[in-house]
Amino acid sequence: MNDWAYLRPLLKSNQSKIVLLVLDGLGGMPMGPAGPTELEYANTPVMDALAADGTLGQTIPVAPGIAPGSGPAHLALFGYDPLRYTVGRGALAAAGVGLDLRPGDVVARGNFATLDEEGRIVDRRAGRISTEEAAPLVERLAQIQIPGVEITVRPVREYRFVIRLRGENLSPDLEDTDPQQTGVPPKPVQARSPEAEATARLLNQWIAAAREALADHPKANGVLLRGFSTDPQLPRFGDWFGLRAVAIAVYPMYKGVARLVGMDVLDFEGDTPADEFAAAGRVWNDYDFFFIHIKKTDSKGEDGDFYGKAKVIEQVDQALPALLKLEPKVLIITGDHSTPARLRSHSWHPVPFLLWAPDTARSDNQYRFGENACVQGGLGTFPAVQTMPLALAHAQRLKKFGA
Amino acid sequence: MNDWAYLRPLLKSNQSKIVLLVLDGLGGMPMGPAGPTELEYANTPVMDALAADGTLGQTIPVAPGIAPGSGPAHLALFGYDPLRYTVGRGALAAAGVGLDLRPGDVVARGNFATLDEEGRIVDRRAGRISTEEAAPLVERLAQIQIPGVEITVRPVREYRFVIRLRGENLSPDLEDTDPQQTGVPPKPVQARSPEAEATARLLNQWIAAAREALADHPKANGVLLRGFSTDPQLPRFGDWFGLRAVAIAVYPMYKGVARLVGMDVLDFEGDTPADEFAAAGRVWNDYDFFFIHIKKTDSKGEDGDFYGKAKVIEQVDQALPALLKLEPKVLIITGDHSTPARLRSHSWHPVPFLLWAPDTARSDNQYRFGENACVQGGLGTFPAVQTMPLALAHAQRLKKFGA
Repeated sequence: MNDWAYLRPLLKSNQSKIVLLVLDGLGGMPMGPAGPTELEYANTPVMDALAADGTLGQTIPVAPGIAPGSGPAHLALFGYDPLRYTVGRGALAAAGVGLDLRPGDVVARGNFATLDEEGRIVDRRAGRISTEEAAPLVERLAQIQIPGVEITVRPVREYRFVIRLRGENLSPDLEDTDPQQTGVPPKPVQARSPEAEATARLLNQWIAAAREALADHPKANGVLLRGFSTDPQLPRFGDWFGLRAVAIAVYPMYKGVARLVGMDVLDFEGDTPADEFAAAGRVWNDYDFFFIHIKKTDSKGEDGDFYGKAKVIEQVDQALPALLKLEPKVLIITGDHSTPARLRSHSWHPVPFLLWAPDTARSDNQYRFGENACVQGGLGTFPAVQTMPLALAHAQRLKKFGA
Repeated sequence: MNDWAYLRPLLKSNQSKIVLLVLDGLGGMPMGPAGPTELEYANTPVMDALAADGTLGQTIPVAPGIAPGSGPAHLALFGYDPLRYTVGRGALAAAGVGLDLRPGDVVARGNFATLDEEGRIVDRRAGRISTEEAAPLVERLAQIQIPGVEITVRPVREYRFVIRLRGENLSPDLEDTDPQQTGVPPKPVQARSPEAEATARLLNQWIAAAREALADHPKANGVLLRGFSTDPQLPRFGDWFGLRAVAIAVYPMYKGVARLVGMDVLDFEGDTPADEFAAAGRVWNDYDFFFIHIKKTDSKGEDGDFYGKAKVIEQVDQALPALLKLEPKVLIITGDHSTPARLRSHSWHPVPFLLWAPDTARSDNQYRFGENACVQGGLGTFPAVQTMPLALAHAQRLKKFGA
């Protein structure tokens, strides 16, 4: 994958609006050897009408057989080859809560955890304590001072927080402390290379202080850190594609990845698809490109809740007319990856892709939005990283290549 | 194509078994402008049931329009981009008969041939003399000594043998002596570069001595050499993919290519699909990955025998229940390339691909295993070199990529 060098000379500007509507983990599976997927089961008259007018396909998020995390999966949709542009979880989380990253800063994702009297992990998520319950605990962590480094802690959602280290000679070349299992103590922060030794020592001091500060809490009496990373300094989406871009998302992680590529991130009230579409309407004239993220398809998939996932898809479908009323020139409805309820996890399966562009899409004899229809769709099977050129083309924002 | 650097950190181990069942030259064509292919004509109830539960696709063996030899076609299935990893026919043949190759050795494929009194080729395969008939002739060749080089000759099958040169400053940069036609004499060994001149001289001495040694034989009175090569020193399959791998094949060439990538090669009695599946069962607990090779689909295709090829496919289908009883987690049934009976040769056409994995494959509304169903399959059209990541993913042997 290149840096879109061949696209840049072709970019042209117009008044068209492009919407990239990402239903997280949209791709699914039948629950048995046959039957409909979640998307096929869902009653989606609006998406089906768009499918009939538009063109379908399926994407390979990263590479065949690769089940991607949310970060790389979104980067691919935004045109960043995730095998080339790697972003740590810490950097994603920091960007998600609007914590600025300067060159040299090191950030990590944190979880509150429950430890037993011997310091072994009982619950890696501290009983999934609520955002409200976690807030004063994050305050306690924010008070901790370690000589030689400036430490900032910010709450994310529920049991999650972000920690940022700012100082001299820091390195993110560190192992996670989360052992990914219960019954064992958290691992200490370990350096993967000599230049990270000093950073590991600072973090281990901080973790010891955090244990003291949280000691009296019945559930959140420990912390786990992972995804140590720095600012990936990605090329800017707006420069690559000549678009004023805005992200409309409820969850911090997705705001984060949008911020990392230089999109604006919209603040808005509410958390339903209808709220998100309404928010898009309020800034419709200010942007060319709208990344709208729906989280709960993925959450339901990870819970193994086939019908719950189908229901979320139906909610999006019911809200869609409000988005269509804004008259986007191009509307893409897809997922960042598959999260089949049957597997209860992200998977490598290709992702359904619907491209609706009333003036420019070639319709393809498909009348329903679903995995099997997408296999037969006019766009075929293609890498997700090719989404943006398709979006630009259908928005008539690309000139002819060559004479 | 890279060295699977992105896969290695994702590998995880489990008890799953993966079977790659290769029906050589599986892809076919209708004999006329319409009609079924060999695979579509064959009565394959078991494969069709697997197709119904599993997912189909079609592979491009090397690159669009390229009809591959068996070596590159198998390398692609094993994850080795054949445009990058080139292996000479000689090295394949040597590996196939278990002739070890050290750095600096030069090997070539040999054919016995029939020459007329003027030394012109009458038959490039010496009337396809049998393995038994060839054995004493190979013995004669093995007696020949050329000063300055150690020469080893080993029988392959029928009219074929392998020759290995071991010594100082040898080079494989040599033209084949087989003119690929009759009525002309064999070409002398010619160097393509100055550093190969000495090797060419040694080989021409050896060929002259071989003519003398064979002079009294009515059919096999000459030799042809081709595919001069050295050990390609390929990365090891087991390291790349974290699998204990075994090859189950009847023909030396396929054992050879498996050995070159570091697979174990199983010795077993018999040569039918049932014999091969039984052999797999005997070592089922010792390996994670089973490459099982069926040769005769290709042989029948090369003979132009449409019904014969279909019959071989049916024999495999009838034997399949024994393989399924072993309960592989992933079973892939495909070819290394197409050998349509209509063309009587290897071809560039995409190759039918069936991936059955009862816990993890997304079924795709296809109920028969055949070329046209594969075009509509959920895996789409993809490079054969992506087979291994798909196998690993469906065996749940890959962790999530990124967070």
